[in-house]
Amino acid sequence: MVRWEPGGRSRLQTAAVELFLAQGFEQTTAAQIAESAGLTERTFFRHFTDKREVLFEGQEHFQQVFVDGAAGPPRGEAPLVLVSAALARAADLFPQERREGARLRQRVIAANPALQERELLKLAGVAAALAAALRERGVHEPSATLAAESGLTVFTVAFGQWLAEGEERPLEQVVGAVLAELTTLARPGGNA
Amino acid sequence: MVRWEPGGRSRLQTAAVELFLAQGFEQTTAAQIAESAGLTERTFFRHFTDKREVLFEGQEHFQQVFVDGAAGPPRGEAPLVLVSAALARAADLFPQERREGARLRQRVIAANPALQERELLKLAGVAAALAAALRERGVHEPSATLAAESGLTVFTVAFGQWLAEGEERPLEQVVGAVLAELTTLARPGGNA
Repeated sequence: MVRWEPGGRSRLQTAAVELFLAQGFEQTTAAQIAESAGLTERTFFRHFTDKREVLFEGQEHFQQVFVDGAAGPPRGEAPLVLVSAALARAADLFPQERREGARLRQRVIAANPALQERELLKLAGVAAALAAALRERGVHEPSATLAAESGLTVFTVAFGQWLAEGEERPLEQVVGAVLAELTTLARPGGNA
Repeated sequence: MVRWEPGGRSRLQTAAVELFLAQGFEQTTAAQIAESAGLTERTFFRHFTDKREVLFEGQEHFQQVFVDGAAGPPRGEAPLVLVSAALARAADLFPQERREGARLRQRVIAANPALQERELLKLAGVAAALAAALRERGVHEPSATLAAESGLTVFTVAFGQWLAEGEERPLEQVVGAVLAELTTLARPGGNA
């Protein structure tokens, strides 16, 4: 019989990130995370495949949200309109109450090159899935890939701003501002 | 006394890529590469740190070419004009005679997820250096990062097209066409 641990999953996540920050990702074991959360190692492995999954869980869902978002606008809209719809849907995944946890996760990843590679690969996967969704909607190459990759760049830049200390705007608003910026890059005077 | 091996470096590169394609990157050793090139393992290690470096040598130079290219246009130009100058300079690194070798390298990387991660990290490094060069020229954030990342996306997409069978245009021309496409993404009708 599997024993029900109330809040076990989120207790494990909190404990993991605290340990990753205190002593490093490589130096932290699943057993330590479980102990710190007051749970058994077996419980840890009921929730996560390994310690890395604590940081990268939900990737399929994250990707699917972009894909579903791009299906929203009517046919005939510009590629960037589809991308904008995808980004808005993805931004909804990160309400205000997730900001602090996302900041801590970002600090863990910034401290570890292997985790950074993993994060880049995750974002590349989302971009490829979004490009496929755009082609599905009739956007030709190379526009589909360009629009999808640019969209992920916008999301990443906006996400970084959203995590900055003192930033108060909701993520969707930051995404909108960065997306608007993307369309002005061809305008002179930016480096006056 | 170090013995001079005429063409040793390029013979090692050719042998390495052939072996990577024939039997897989992981399965190939430096000793096998050296033997296949008719050279000693010691000679291999005089030219390369490890077998991965055969595929990723010259990364600092590659990055510097983008940075130097962005320094060309006069102040006050649009961020994308600086990026365009950087891309043109980078495209010069790949004349027609390098196309076949680049195709083979691409096939090696496409077959190996760890090499793909390494390639993504390399491109992320170039984008970060280019963004820094744009800030140096007075482009503010987030425009600098957006422009640099978009530039690398354009380069990657164009490079992929340049490697496609039957593609005859020089890389600089393909880059120009893809860059032009980037500025049309906000235009409706792309997915009509």
